[in-house]
Amino acid sequence: MKRKNRLSIQEYKDGILSGNRVILSRAITLVESALDDDNELAAKLINEIYPYTGNSYRIGITGVPGVGKSTFIESFGAYLIEQNKKLAVLTIDPSSQKSGGSILGDKTRMEKLSVSSHAFIRPSPAGDALGGVAHKTRETMLLCEAAGYDVIFIETVGVGQSETAVKNMVDFFLLLMLAGAGDELQGIKKGIMEMADSIAITKADGNNLDASRQAKKEYQNALHLFPSNENGWNPQVLLCSALQNKGLEDTWKILTDYYFKMKQNGFFDFNRKEQSVHWMHQTINLYLKRNFYNRPEIIEKLATFEDAVRSGKKHSVQAARELLSFQVNN
Amino acid sequence: MKRKNRLSIQEYKDGILSGNRVILSRAITLVESALDDDNELAAKLINEIYPYTGNSYRIGITGVPGVGKSTFIESFGAYLIEQNKKLAVLTIDPSSQKSGGSILGDKTRMEKLSVSSHAFIRPSPAGDALGGVAHKTRETMLLCEAAGYDVIFIETVGVGQSETAVKNMVDFFLLLMLAGAGDELQGIKKGIMEMADSIAITKADGNNLDASRQAKKEYQNALHLFPSNENGWNPQVLLCSALQNKGLEDTWKILTDYYFKMKQNGFFDFNRKEQSVHWMHQTINLYLKRNFYNRPEIIEKLATFEDAVRSGKKHSVQAARELLSFQVNN
Repeated sequence: MKRKNRLSIQEYKDGILSGNRVILSRAITLVESALDDDNELAAKLINEIYPYTGNSYRIGITGVPGVGKSTFIESFGAYLIEQNKKLAVLTIDPSSQKSGGSILGDKTRMEKLSVSSHAFIRPSPAGDALGGVAHKTRETMLLCEAAGYDVIFIETVGVGQSETAVKNMVDFFLLLMLAGAGDELQGIKKGIMEMADSIAITKADGNNLDASRQAKKEYQNALHLFPSNENGWNPQVLLCSALQNKGLEDTWKILTDYYFKMKQNGFFDFNRKEQSVHWMHQTINLYLKRNFYNRPEIIEKLATFEDAVRSGKKHSVQAARELLSFQVNN
Repeated sequence: MKRKNRLSIQEYKDGILSGNRVILSRAITLVESALDDDNELAAKLINEIYPYTGNSYRIGITGVPGVGKSTFIESFGAYLIEQNKKLAVLTIDPSSQKSGGSILGDKTRMEKLSVSSHAFIRPSPAGDALGGVAHKTRETMLLCEAAGYDVIFIETVGVGQSETAVKNMVDFFLLLMLAGAGDELQGIKKGIMEMADSIAITKADGNNLDASRQAKKEYQNALHLFPSNENGWNPQVLLCSALQNKGLEDTWKILTDYYFKMKQNGFFDFNRKEQSVHWMHQTINLYLKRNFYNRPEIIEKLATFEDAVRSGKKHSVQAARELLSFQVNN
């Protein structure tokens, strides 16, 4: 049964391929829907547009709140549009699930981009507790590719569980850091620094310039100690200033340098293929978990079992087996 | 039905609690078994001994082959035995699944420990492709605790998928590194350095001493740039030499320092409780995946679907949904 306000697959497809932003938005809403019949329709739509995907440069951008992420995306996005690129900015922010808000909910934070006909900004989907947010963002990325966007930013806040998911859906992972910031501000999740394909130090201007230069040196030394990348890429550290419009060209140069090197040595395509297989397994895993954790008897009992395990009353394997037995018996 | 060569739960329990090494070994073999009736018996046994677990210091030790891991464990283990500790050394080595061997298979690599009545060495279990190795090692750890071992080393090779699992089952995560080693030798997995609670630089002697001192300084600077730990702990870098028996006391000092600080600020117990809940969910996930991927129709079709996704013929979500539909329909 088709829901009200839903278009036909053909209408979605034609609209997306012709670059119609309104229909693209409605297709994303379909992908983000929690309703079963919407999910069916969305899966069919993705299959239809799948041959038209894969032509964008997928870039993950991570940095904690306060690092100047939206300012960086605003300036860098404007720079890319000047280079005749069409840009889509998507966000994964699991914290928005709780607050009901979203880090990109306030579009006015990106004034220039939000009014440009060459940019498409979409805040974080609601998702569910089982990791569905990243899946939805990945499908949204495919829709944007079919709609002709050449560059796609996937933005995360660097403090949650999303960064590994993002690393597994992008071609390049850019980490934004701030020189001389306190621990609180730098409080990104462990392991993210080692994932970064490059680090951009933001707000490298005025009184902060010397500290930023020093930080660049320190991060370069630190990156040198990290395990080397299987693709032969050496992560770069660069200085940026949105205030002075500095570092944007450098950032794009590093990105294109990476792109051509990875295309040439075969890693770019290899990585995308393996990412696709990865997402097949992730999707299977998500559906298996959803099917289990959404059962009424599991929802009812889960917290009690977690408490029993936490307090040592039950061993974790025993608790797991008991919970699983409800699934088998009911 | 009880299998040949299996003891009763009571016999296992009595043997383990009295510190009988032969019965402990047989109980571990039961835990590692792939047979359903063994799994049932093992789950009951773990429940029985569960109240006697939790009293050891659980230490993860990671380093790539060549870093001197077994030499370090041999000397440090001997040092701990001199301090009247009983030590168990367990290994997770997913690569042993393929070769059929194990990094601890050759016990002669740890001559002193393997003949000591205060040390218990157990090589890596075979496990399965779905991550079952870590689950089995965690249960083996519980059996060793019930048998009275005060310190448990969980050893991994730092190049696979096991380190996150190990981080989630130990109290302290020690990374072994080598100064001035080529990229190949240092080729540990990304993200491991940021997980480490401390780094020990091995073979810091003779001609290597200056380079080791320099490396210590560099790693200390690098660790300083990492995100800070929620528990307030600052990872240390120390120098070790098995040849000169140096750094063992320092290592133990850092470990005890960490232990008392984390006991005092409550992180130690908090972390163990959260780890238990984590393993309940991991166990549920493992069983769900096993139940799915072990179905004959999935085993038969999986490689074809992976190839279709890799070559772009099928979208990953479509492939996942089709594979899942076999489960529903059969």
